[in-house]
Amino acid sequence: MVDFTYHNPTKIEFGKGKEALIGTAIAQNHINKILLCYGSERIKKDGLYDTVTAHLKKNGIAWVELGGIISNPVLSKVNEGIALAKKENVQAVLAIGGGSVLDSAKSIAAGALYAGDVWDFFIGKASIEKALPVYAIMTLAATGSEMNGFAVVTNDETQQKYNIASIHVYPRLSILNPVLTQSVPNNYLAYSAVDIIAHVIEGYLTASVQPHFQSRMVEGIVQTVMETTEILLQNSSDYNARAEFTWAATQALNGITTAGTNPYVFPNHMIEHSLSALFNIAHGAGLAIVIPAWMRWYHTQNPAQFKRFAKILFGKDSAEEGINALKNWFAKIGAPVSLSEAGISKEAIEKIAQNVAEAAERQGVSHIYSQSVIEAILRNA
Amino acid sequence: MVDFTYHNPTKIEFGKGKEALIGTAIAQNHINKILLCYGSERIKKDGLYDTVTAHLKKNGIAWVELGGIISNPVLSKVNEGIALAKKENVQAVLAIGGGSVLDSAKSIAAGALYAGDVWDFFIGKASIEKALPVYAIMTLAATGSEMNGFAVVTNDETQQKYNIASIHVYPRLSILNPVLTQSVPNNYLAYSAVDIIAHVIEGYLTASVQPHFQSRMVEGIVQTVMETTEILLQNSSDYNARAEFTWAATQALNGITTAGTNPYVFPNHMIEHSLSALFNIAHGAGLAIVIPAWMRWYHTQNPAQFKRFAKILFGKDSAEEGINALKNWFAKIGAPVSLSEAGISKEAIEKIAQNVAEAAERQGVSHIYSQSVIEAILRNA
Repeated sequence: MVDFTYHNPTKIEFGKGKEALIGTAIAQNHINKILLCYGSERIKKDGLYDTVTAHLKKNGIAWVELGGIISNPVLSKVNEGIALAKKENVQAVLAIGGGSVLDSAKSIAAGALYAGDVWDFFIGKASIEKALPVYAIMTLAATGSEMNGFAVVTNDETQQKYNIASIHVYPRLSILNPVLTQSVPNNYLAYSAVDIIAHVIEGYLTASVQPHFQSRMVEGIVQTVMETTEILLQNSSDYNARAEFTWAATQALNGITTAGTNPYVFPNHMIEHSLSALFNIAHGAGLAIVIPAWMRWYHTQNPAQFKRFAKILFGKDSAEEGINALKNWFAKIGAPVSLSEAGISKEAIEKIAQNVAEAAERQGVSHIYSQSVIEAILRNA
Repeated sequence: MVDFTYHNPTKIEFGKGKEALIGTAIAQNHINKILLCYGSERIKKDGLYDTVTAHLKKNGIAWVELGGIISNPVLSKVNEGIALAKKENVQAVLAIGGGSVLDSAKSIAAGALYAGDVWDFFIGKASIEKALPVYAIMTLAATGSEMNGFAVVTNDETQQKYNIASIHVYPRLSILNPVLTQSVPNNYLAYSAVDIIAHVIEGYLTASVQPHFQSRMVEGIVQTVMETTEILLQNSSDYNARAEFTWAATQALNGITTAGTNPYVFPNHMIEHSLSALFNIAHGAGLAIVIPAWMRWYHTQNPAQFKRFAKILFGKDSAEEGINALKNWFAKIGAPVSLSEAGISKEAIEKIAQNVAEAAERQGVSHIYSQSVIEAILRNA
């Protein structure tokens, strides 16, 4: 095992109706004005907005709003939020939504206390020294953003989809009520499943030191996600399956599966970020396309772990069979597994690979992921 | 899954030589005088004391000392520490040692800011509202105390071994350097393994709602502990095995395996606490005696989970075979598996059961664990 630091200060309130705690939780921290971030107007129709604002009012908390945050959230919207937060002098940011809303909220929280351009944090020109406290009420289980210090944003001018990582943007409190995720349609449930699996297998397959203990946790998460996804595709109101799916999503990216593993890379996320930045496809859909293609290119570099993966998760004896089984499972749950299924033509491969190569350069992995390697991977898709 | 709150603010520094960080970590929190708690004088002989105090000095941190804390730590020593902490006006408590030292440090930290008798917290007469910050450098991996808010102390007047649980006594920082645990003799390594396994299987076997996801984490921890214990008994300097063992111990009682499970009980710990309070045997040794006996009495109440336990952990088809396999494994690693092996006669059973029955009353489980039930369990041992 490799030396590590683990610190995850986020408090989780998990369960039915827990959103009712938000007012008292914020008031306890002597906060009386917040920026409320959300995506579509759906939360106003389904009653969640009313519930939350009633509890804010009851606790004497004023708010200003930033609605209309989209999937694959964009920098221009983040900048709008930062301007609003500064002008209105808010003391905290509350996200109601999925990963995109929370990632925007985290970015706004950091940018609101910074004099420069928030994009500086994404390109490594500055590091986050402080941020407004972040609170979250999740309506989608997928990104794991509710219990970590990561945020991914697309610069809509440059089409770069980059991320920040800081202890200062861990949510103070994340409220996970599985019932709130129930209205997610089946295709997005499938994309979420792929995203969660991707979060754990990137490290599992790329870390050169991968202890058994961490592997077991990863396998437990993947098994749980596969099992509960199949239940939920049949019956979206199965509370227990939804709860296990939700909690597995949180555990998948809260640092626990990678603590003590060797420096690992997230090549599938890196490649997918370019796909979704350029073609605006759902992140999980992009991952379902990239992962089997990447695996086919990569598996000979870590044969023992790929064999373990095939055996434990699919009862298969070879890496190839394991990769096929995963790809088939992605297809079975309704995720696209080729570029053509997502309407992306062969001709776009070079452009995508260029965009990825820039990110690889920035992440210091361009010696492994050169443009020609990325093109080779994408041709597998 | 059942609703839950999860909040674990402890920071972990894990790895070789990490104890060198203690001075800067404490100084960062603007603390300049601490109470340093430890057990035997061993830390003065092996250099750890010198390393730590050098880093305290370097960072301008003064200290007073409370040495001589024993296993199954006692209230009289805790009170001595509280008096010293109050008199010397220390701002934090640093534990160097295993679970007993850290449990004492947590109790002192809570008692130092309380006007009444610290035992009030243990018997439920008062609840902990605040505590001095607690820091830990662990020299034994077993109790999980490094990443939770529990502390167990024996009242040496009344022979009651009771515990506290509070968010205020979670260590601010726990330093886990697996190398520091290397000098633990084989019998104590075995007792530690039993203790870790007990921490996870109590909930696994008694929760009436036990989701697959949590079961998988428990099984991963048990498999890791069994595997690494066998390696370490052969070769105590295998760093990787020791690191996995250490981290599994921490994960076993940091709340993650029980989050979302139904209210569970810790009957084996409850029974064992009376054994070690009355006979001063090692906690893990006592657990190795109690667990198979309790399992034999209990398994018919949760047949599906016992079958799962037998199958996944030992490849056995029945609960009985699984219980025997665990008992045999305890014996194989050198832990006692009967009262007689620990020099406790049949005649003592009634006295032990009386002591346990008092704790059961206090824990609100006396309707299940009556004195006659406890006697029946102990007769299995």
